[in-house]
Amino acid sequence: MDRIAESLRDRVMSAEEAAKIIRSGMTIGVSGFTNIGYPKAVPQALAESKHAKDLTIMVGAATGDELDGALVRAGLVKYRYGHQSNDSLRQAINDGSVLFSDIHISQLPLNINQKTGPKMDIALAECVAVTEEGLYLGASAGSVDAAVMTADRVIVEVNESLPMGLMGMHDFFEIGLPPRAKIIPIEKPDDRIGTPFIPCPPEKIAAIVVTDLSDQPQKFRPVDPVTAKIGQNIVDFLKAEIAAGRLPENPGPIQSGVGAVGNAVLSCLEAGGFRGLSMYTEVMQDSAFELLSKGVFDFISTSSIALTDENKQRFYENIDFYRDKIIVRPNEISNHPEIIRRLGVIALNTPIEVDIYGNVNSTHLSGTRMMNGLGGSGDFTRNARISIFATESIVLGDNSISCVVPMVSHVDQTEHDVCVIVTEQGVADLRWKTPRERAELIIENCAHPDYRPQLREYFRHACEISPGKHTPHDLIYALSCHQRLADTGTMLR
Amino acid sequence: MDRIAESLRDRVMSAEEAAKIIRSGMTIGVSGFTNIGYPKAVPQALAESKHAKDLTIMVGAATGDELDGALVRAGLVKYRYGHQSNDSLRQAINDGSVLFSDIHISQLPLNINQKTGPKMDIALAECVAVTEEGLYLGASAGSVDAAVMTADRVIVEVNESLPMGLMGMHDFFEIGLPPRAKIIPIEKPDDRIGTPFIPCPPEKIAAIVVTDLSDQPQKFRPVDPVTAKIGQNIVDFLKAEIAAGRLPENPGPIQSGVGAVGNAVLSCLEAGGFRGLSMYTEVMQDSAFELLSKGVFDFISTSSIALTDENKQRFYENIDFYRDKIIVRPNEISNHPEIIRRLGVIALNTPIEVDIYGNVNSTHLSGTRMMNGLGGSGDFTRNARISIFATESIVLGDNSISCVVPMVSHVDQTEHDVCVIVTEQGVADLRWKTPRERAELIIENCAHPDYRPQLREYFRHACEISPGKHTPHDLIYALSCHQRLADTGTMLR
Repeated sequence: MDRIAESLRDRVMSAEEAAKIIRSGMTIGVSGFTNIGYPKAVPQALAESKHAKDLTIMVGAATGDELDGALVRAGLVKYRYGHQSNDSLRQAINDGSVLFSDIHISQLPLNINQKTGPKMDIALAECVAVTEEGLYLGASAGSVDAAVMTADRVIVEVNESLPMGLMGMHDFFEIGLPPRAKIIPIEKPDDRIGTPFIPCPPEKIAAIVVTDLSDQPQKFRPVDPVTAKIGQNIVDFLKAEIAAGRLPENPGPIQSGVGAVGNAVLSCLEAGGFRGLSMYTEVMQDSAFELLSKGVFDFISTSSIALTDENKQRFYENIDFYRDKIIVRPNEISNHPEIIRRLGVIALNTPIEVDIYGNVNSTHLSGTRMMNGLGGSGDFTRNARISIFATESIVLGDNSISCVVPMVSHVDQTEHDVCVIVTEQGVADLRWKTPRERAELIIENCAHPDYRPQLREYFRHACEISPGKHTPHDLIYALSCHQRLADTGTMLR
Repeated sequence: MDRIAESLRDRVMSAEEAAKIIRSGMTIGVSGFTNIGYPKAVPQALAESKHAKDLTIMVGAATGDELDGALVRAGLVKYRYGHQSNDSLRQAINDGSVLFSDIHISQLPLNINQKTGPKMDIALAECVAVTEEGLYLGASAGSVDAAVMTADRVIVEVNESLPMGLMGMHDFFEIGLPPRAKIIPIEKPDDRIGTPFIPCPPEKIAAIVVTDLSDQPQKFRPVDPVTAKIGQNIVDFLKAEIAAGRLPENPGPIQSGVGAVGNAVLSCLEAGGFRGLSMYTEVMQDSAFELLSKGVFDFISTSSIALTDENKQRFYENIDFYRDKIIVRPNEISNHPEIIRRLGVIALNTPIEVDIYGNVNSTHLSGTRMMNGLGGSGDFTRNARISIFATESIVLGDNSISCVVPMVSHVDQTEHDVCVIVTEQGVADLRWKTPRERAELIIENCAHPDYRPQLREYFRHACEISPGKHTPHDLIYALSCHQRLADTGTMLR
């Protein structure tokens, strides 16, 4: 099969020509999720020509530097929606030169489809192939299906370095708008309900650019003794839940945030004797390939396959093996509350900090500086069967920053949504617990020993000055450890 | 038809005898939602005999004083789960003598069914009638279906003062547990998918008590010029959304919190010319009867019909008219994220306070003292098509407490979930807005004029000391207006 349908070949042009279609003030919905499958040639041409300014960019989550970095450094981006992780973009968001509004991953495509925001001018997608039926994406789905559906025109980058074997891994389904939104008939992670391509009328396709540019490879912090202990604590918790009959022998599909903690959990699942598990997640991380081969996982539903250089090779060479074991879904489906609750997903996410009552900060350093954004943590946490937040008790082995604080400086997940907190110190199961019970559990089981005395002291003092109060706090001191960090370089008293 | 099936009549006994089935340390799941349809005779007998202590009580939401008040004052309640609004109970929760954990309304039955918490010993339900098939409830559903399903034994209060015409208004559906949880096939508010009774094997029924006790009547604060202006602002916003094509002509079903603001909105919908609307909500308030009669609403799906003395009469006398226009659903369905998102519900809730970045406090006065709990506000807000929070800009016309503050003292709804804030001053549409854009909108459009200078001053100062920060805050002063209220009796500087 050809990568470009014959009837569409008259749209082939250079990246520079295609970039000219984009004009100042336009809104562009792009493909990509966690630096996988994002367009690279047209954004770079645009960053070079600088002819279109004040752009609004909407992304499933986090594209690579050729897009999120280059366009921002060229000063062309006014608004940016969707999770991000690029240094240049993060700096621009924090200094206010790029306007960023942080939205749940499942809700960005929902809002694009419901047209609550800016009119979509252009959808820009990297593809394996394009036919008269539509677009075959690379190893992610993101939210570009909503962009293709609502945009006036579509620009396609056909990347010849991507294996044709990626075709058939995706599953796109149009939910439709209320009052005619459809039931999403997924009852197991491996249910296919739609098409392997994004439907797109050929007349919408304004340009096709042929490229062979590679995504920036993913880099993960390796598992170390601390993250390994966190992983072990989580697996021990899950085994105890199964033993108590609160989870089935084969527990619900797992959602796991990317990073060292996620990888540690996955390898502990193997060591813990689990077999035949599944994932229903937004990013399939590195270590899952190995576990699919070993039968620890039978199946993975994801919106992105995050590839390190090493695993990219392995994946491409064994793509026929993996094609039966992975579905790549768009964000509106991968993160949809309907499916997450129905399947009984077990959600594992990593916070910036947690507080003694179980509130979680996922986004803001010291309550003010944006890190990467919310991602899908809220989609999964609110609707999961069990929502676990796992983190080192102090940041990177240096005790100047505690990840357990009296009051989080920004709340992304509320006390009502956080079931379990896990650190290398232990586990706090917060379900059915009152705020005062939670405080004791979190301080004694999860906080770093260096911080326990001052957390105990805060809690004791708060109880003393808040008699007759459900959630004891001293509002003068509740955020003082963040202030101490700013003033003295450490939260430690 | 008889209220008690002949084969069950040998279980009829006095409330005092039935109460003896309850022993110390037991967990009891009771019927009722917002003071409607809760058991009264057995709890009062128990409060009298005081023979069973350390009880765990689980409620859909807020029962009346005969239960939540009497059992607490008798010192019999150790744990209490589910929304509450009784003065004695609230005081006991805050002083710590009753242990209370605040959980989303949709998630209490989910957790009961998944058996993540205490073993359910007894289900205690007020009914219109009981047959060999199961229980026909009064004018609410709550979460007692989960209690009946999981309890060892069931105690029924058959209330002869309830009209038999209530039979047939309910719709119970067993979702089942993951990995075999079912699709919930509701595509319109009036879709019936289950049975009008809670299925219950006759052998589980341990006692039947015949009563004629009335629920405490609901009392609503009447609409006044301030709440009327809030209602008008909301209706104007909805009309503008429809005019802009962002909502259909007949917008999605409405969820509305109970109270003066909810009633004001409903009456403004009528004046605004809306017809043929529907509700998908957890409590159907007072004013909706009138609007059903006038055709403003065609249909209402709810978990409770909150009856004032005046409307109870009207409802009972015209029950055949209303039976076709109302479905009473259990909390697991009335508040299920799957349905709320599919139907495109427009959610209207009332906060305790909002902050300049759009975070909402729904539960804690000054961040410490529990009011009534979260209720279903989180279920609806996270999954609604548009989530609106509407409140007076200051509390009850006295400018010592502003409902717009620099930082809320407790977060129940995050900035990611709150679409629109409305006060009598105006509307702040926060969708697609950055934190700094939101602050300007909320201060200028929603805050009370008396508080605008100090809110502007806080925001200006926070921007000044937080250069290069996405969400400007001064952590030393962020909560200082709550502290000022405690110290001086007013938030006003």
